[in-house]
Amino acid sequence: MMTRPETAEKAGAGVIGGSGYIGSEILRYLSIHPRVEVRWVTAHTKVGERIGDVLPNLRGFVNGVFVTNDEARERLPEAQVVFVCLPHNESQTVIPALATARPDTVFIDMGGDFRTNDPGGYRRFYGAEHKAPDWLPRFVYGFTEYARERLAGARLIANPGCFATTLNLSLAPLAAEGKLEGDVFVVAITGSSGAGNKPIQTTHHPERASNVRAYKPLAHQHLLEVEGFLRTLSRKDFRVQFVPQSGPFVRGIFATVFTPRIGIEELERIYRAAYDGERLVSVIRGTPELRSVQGTPCSVIGVDGEAGRGVVFCVTDNLGKGAAGQAIQNMNLAMGFPETEGLLFPGGYV
Amino acid sequence: MMTRPETAEKAGAGVIGGSGYIGSEILRYLSIHPRVEVRWVTAHTKVGERIGDVLPNLRGFVNGVFVTNDEARERLPEAQVVFVCLPHNESQTVIPALATARPDTVFIDMGGDFRTNDPGGYRRFYGAEHKAPDWLPRFVYGFTEYARERLAGARLIANPGCFATTLNLSLAPLAAEGKLEGDVFVVAITGSSGAGNKPIQTTHHPERASNVRAYKPLAHQHLLEVEGFLRTLSRKDFRVQFVPQSGPFVRGIFATVFTPRIGIEELERIYRAAYDGERLVSVIRGTPELRSVQGTPCSVIGVDGEAGRGVVFCVTDNLGKGAAGQAIQNMNLAMGFPETEGLLFPGGYV
Amino acid sequence: MMTRPETAEKAGAGVIGGSGYIGSEILRYLSIHPRVEVRWVTAHTKVGERIGDVLPNLRGFVNGVFVTNDEARERLPEAQVVFVCLPHNESQTVIPALATARPDTVFIDMGGDFRTNDPGGYRRFYGAEHKAPDWLPRFVYGFTEYARERLAGARLIANPGCFATTLNLSLAPLAAEGKLEGDVFVVAITGSSGAGNKPIQTTHHPERASNVRAYKPLAHQHLLEVEGFLRTLSRKDFRVQFVPQSGPFVRGIFATVFTPRIGIEELERIYRAAYDGERLVSVIRGTPELRSVQGTPCSVIGVDGEAGRGVVFCVTDNLGKGAAGQAIQNMNLAMGFPETEGLLFPGGYV
Amino acid sequence: MMTRPETAEKAGAGVIGGSGYIGSEILRYLSIHPRVEVRWVTAHTKVGERIGDVLPNLRGFVNGVFVTNDEARERLPEAQVVFVCLPHNESQTVIPALATARPDTVFIDMGGDFRTNDPGGYRRFYGAEHKAPDWLPRFVYGFTEYARERLAGARLIANPGCFATTLNLSLAPLAAEGKLEGDVFVVAITGSSGAGNKPIQTTHHPERASNVRAYKPLAHQHLLEVEGFLRTLSRKDFRVQFVPQSGPFVRGIFATVFTPRIGIEELERIYRAAYDGERLVSVIRGTPELRSVQGTPCSVIGVDGEAGRGVVFCVTDNLGKGAAGQAIQNMNLAMGFPETEGLLFPGGYV
Repeated sequence: MMTRPETAEKAGAGVIGGSGYIGSEILRYLSIHPRVEVRWVTAHTKVGERIGDVLPNLRGFVNGVFVTNDEARERLPEAQVVFVCLPHNESQTVIPALATARPDTVFIDMGGDFRTNDPGGYRRFYGAEHKAPDWLPRFVYGFTEYARERLAGARLIANPGCFATTLNLSLAPLAAEGKLEGDVFVVAITGSSGAGNKPIQTTHHPERASNVRAYKPLAHQHLLEVEGFLRTLSRKDFRVQFVPQSGPFVRGIFATVFTPRIGIEELERIYRAAYDGERLVSVIRGTPELRSVQGTPCSVIGVDGEAGRGVVFCVTDNLGKGAAGQAIQNMNLAMGFPETEGLLFPGGYV
Repeated sequence: MMTRPETAEKAGAGVIGGSGYIGSEILRYLSIHPRVEVRWVTAHTKVGERIGDVLPNLRGFVNGVFVTNDEARERLPEAQVVFVCLPHNESQTVIPALATARPDTVFIDMGGDFRTNDPGGYRRFYGAEHKAPDWLPRFVYGFTEYARERLAGARLIANPGCFATTLNLSLAPLAAEGKLEGDVFVVAITGSSGAGNKPIQTTHHPERASNVRAYKPLAHQHLLEVEGFLRTLSRKDFRVQFVPQSGPFVRGIFATVFTPRIGIEELERIYRAAYDGERLVSVIRGTPELRSVQGTPCSVIGVDGEAGRGVVFCVTDNLGKGAAGQAIQNMNLAMGFPETEGLLFPGGYV
Repeated sequence: MMTRPETAEKAGAGVIGGSGYIGSEILRYLSIHPRVEVRWVTAHTKVGERIGDVLPNLRGFVNGVFVTNDEARERLPEAQVVFVCLPHNESQTVIPALATARPDTVFIDMGGDFRTNDPGGYRRFYGAEHKAPDWLPRFVYGFTEYARERLAGARLIANPGCFATTLNLSLAPLAAEGKLEGDVFVVAITGSSGAGNKPIQTTHHPERASNVRAYKPLAHQHLLEVEGFLRTLSRKDFRVQFVPQSGPFVRGIFATVFTPRIGIEELERIYRAAYDGERLVSVIRGTPELRSVQGTPCSVIGVDGEAGRGVVFCVTDNLGKGAAGQAIQNMNLAMGFPETEGLLFPGGYV
Repeated sequence: MMTRPETAEKAGAGVIGGSGYIGSEILRYLSIHPRVEVRWVTAHTKVGERIGDVLPNLRGFVNGVFVTNDEARERLPEAQVVFVCLPHNESQTVIPALATARPDTVFIDMGGDFRTNDPGGYRRFYGAEHKAPDWLPRFVYGFTEYARERLAGARLIANPGCFATTLNLSLAPLAAEGKLEGDVFVVAITGSSGAGNKPIQTTHHPERASNVRAYKPLAHQHLLEVEGFLRTLSRKDFRVQFVPQSGPFVRGIFATVFTPRIGIEELERIYRAAYDGERLVSVIRGTPELRSVQGTPCSVIGVDGEAGRGVVFCVTDNLGKGAAGQAIQNMNLAMGFPETEGLLFPGGYV
């Protein structure tokens, strides 16, 4: 299976759990990556089915059929990089076994299993005892813009969650400047693809199509990695009061952060300082539009408000920068490729 | 349980399967009906739960909890009318038993079980042998506008399907004038609520929200009742070539019928003759807008085209005139109430 | 023009600006009101057109044609109540003239002109000098649940804005208990019907259909009436930090209020105390669903969180409780009818 | 202005009318094309504004500002290919002047002006006398799959319309095999982006978001080019009875064609014969999903039915294969590049 005429120079990639939304988006990105080609893809409910039949958007772009986990294990040597797209609590048993067998392979975990160094926090937020707590510190937390040095050459990468990426992008510059303190109020609304490809009541079209609701207010599991990460940037005491919501659209997250003591000018300075050199993150005055990043690996930060008080907005595609896009960024860094290789394509205006 | 202060004169209603979309829409209509009050509602997966918690739109309008089928059977005498909202192939065992016990009760079946007199057709379209074929001719097919005489005082009513209602409305006037002949080409696109309240892949929001697809082209089970009904109006030979489609909206059906040999003037005459006295069906020139009937028991027919060839459009709310609205119409006729009692409320402009 | 066979007892109603979304929703409610009938409706761009052609949802419910403002003035005596649905800055010239001529008529203004007693605030938020500042104190601010005594028999009513109603519902109980203090962080997302019926870029379907954006953060004009009203309930110093957003749905507002020092139990007590006797406002634990109020005059408050910190949610239909529904409530009170007359019909579950 | 570091080998491109949906989609495709770079873009209402501010999806991909038509004329020599994205009736005056001045430049007209050789038909469908009828035969009608020989080296290309492309794809194989005869019944539903970027009532979000309506039934202007083109393939007498509809989604067209005398097996043979070698058109059994082509230059044909009668479906992105995608295909052929250069990227699964 390959995306283009085989060339000796291309690195091989494997995808475990490739029929879900995150897996399929990784395949979408890989299919146009000039230095990597897909060698095998697993999907335990789709074994033997053609990838282009299950994921018709990839017809003509990714050939071959979904294989079993056993076959993937046998063909592990074909892959220099493996993306693991499993439900929470699963990759913690899968990756240690594979990585022990192939320590030079890059493993990028898309689940929540290795995004913290705190097994107690993991238990509290994910409701299960971590089965490989000694592996936690071996993973690099792949929030790319703040981890490039550690990502270069990394072999074990925990890719951040979609809400987490959006909150990290919004809050890290504040934390790094010592501006994160006390209660931090954040609302973020997400599209339905964030819930995955398995139909459930809250993503049932008649009940989602014009609805808005909140869920897990103040208690979302991504707080674990967000607060953990932000504390590496600032010693000040803060608490993220985070209300996730679900909205009637498919892709993207729109986050709102109140900064009651930081005005718009100061915000613009802080965020420009943090992101002005970035290719995938841009900073504007005023509100960003969620649709401007849908389908892409890009994020936009908007700063607004007046003198003395402000608001920060961040838009991210939960499957793009919030998942597959950042995973490719991280792969590029881990494997020594240019960071944005394969990522520079724009989405549509509508 | 009741919707308003109890009055001696109100008739009692029971609903079997009241937590689904059709059942809940019937409850919605009943809750404002001046001559009927809901006495019991079953929902086998929700027994003991408050109706207003499961169906928050009815909070304050329908009190009480969902009961078991056993309790419904015991309290059958409280109901002068029973709406049966079960999956296909189920009411054919339920209704005969209940109706034998209470022959004076009005039973309105919302499923497909009794909409035909042709057990062979039933087997072919519904994939199962009919278990009560001798009951088939005892039911009145409740396409109201063409069955008022039979519905007055009826005790067993087979309420038409949503696509069937839309096609019947579109084709009956042609059939009655002997204009239905040869191949009749019909496309109709439906909202996601037509698939019911159980999440499935084709109603999974990420996959439905901007999608259009066809399903069961030329083979939809409602053809059974539509062709059966139309043949009662016309002896001419015709075949409905019907392509159902599903669209990215929640409620309603938009049907398109080609009339390659009937021009717009003739169409207007035919449909006005058929429906001008109707309160719930109106006829306009040009295209109707689907949204003008969403949430209501009304339908609109639009005629368009030019001299010598034309097109007929019909918009219906699949849960309104296509299900609950027509069921209330039929109940009113069966029980001797004014036909549109409880049905005269407009939907929103948007 | 009338909605039902004329009866001597029915009060007459007039609507100025009846072809817009708020006007048409008022007509929708009036068309089923048992004690009122519509006598005339103006719409300066639609003069002479049939109401049921312009607003097809009202076909069969509201008869007659749109008339000129001149005709309305002549026929003012036919109306005991007049709803004024004009753009901001217009009713301040229209109503004083009409009300001077007919001081016993009830005028319900749906615009922002008379919702404050502060001409300076008006200038700041609405960008124009108020032309009838002496009329400001003559209006009752019609946030019904907190103004019943003043509304009984009132002749001049300023109906609250849609965001304002949602924020008032969310914040009034806190203010009344002295719990509103310091910065109050509120995010509320609204559907596109809030922008009115005139097409603009931000409501252009291709650009709105899957988009989220913010607008006027910290500076929305409804803050004027919200802060003004809340200060009548509490002397404590507070500032509402309000970020309005627009989402890809048509009807409704979902508001989120942080209460970092009030836990869920306390919240439940506060809101139940405020609203437990209400027919149109209900209180639940957990998140409300926006769709449960769409198309209706009802609102739902949800309280969530944990011990010591919480969140309050409020869902409102911007055209229902946020405009026409509350206007009918206010009309009922002003005219001595039962407060919820004509308002007790449920929306659909989907 | 350029999309990448300038290289001597890249051809220059100009876009006239680059801020509309078709223009911006062409810019999107050009921004990742390896052999072309954008040199100038006009937009008469946006002169001087940064392209990346007006079209934020292109921020970082297309630099520079929108220029005047005068500047475009001066800088015409920089462009080897010019895309003309003007409202109907405008390019017929613009292109002849420019092409006379620069006869070696490739002009690709995205409007309807040069898609026919029949000035009388143009008058009838577009409501205006054609101002350059002698230029009509000089244009190649760029329905790529059936015009490759004429497109190679062409200088004047009339790019087909979006409905036309979808109908051509669906009907050309039938025409070529002599199977198009008598009345041909076609329904096609389109997304709102087909109406362009100027807000109008039928694309006003509150009125479009859950609506379906028909427009110009049997009379859409694309029939002119479709019937004209199909008659070049078949001498048989046929008439396309075409009902266009608009649906509540943004991108794409779903077309349904009845073939009452051609069964599924025969259909599969015909369409596979026509398209099996194609990279951008694929053929499947059963229904295609509209979303599988949204955002891409690909189309899918689905064949369905039974023995003796069938249905053909076609899904196309109106801005992709229906406009910009095909324009790039045509540019590639005209300029001697590989036909699918710059077009091989997949859309998302959701």
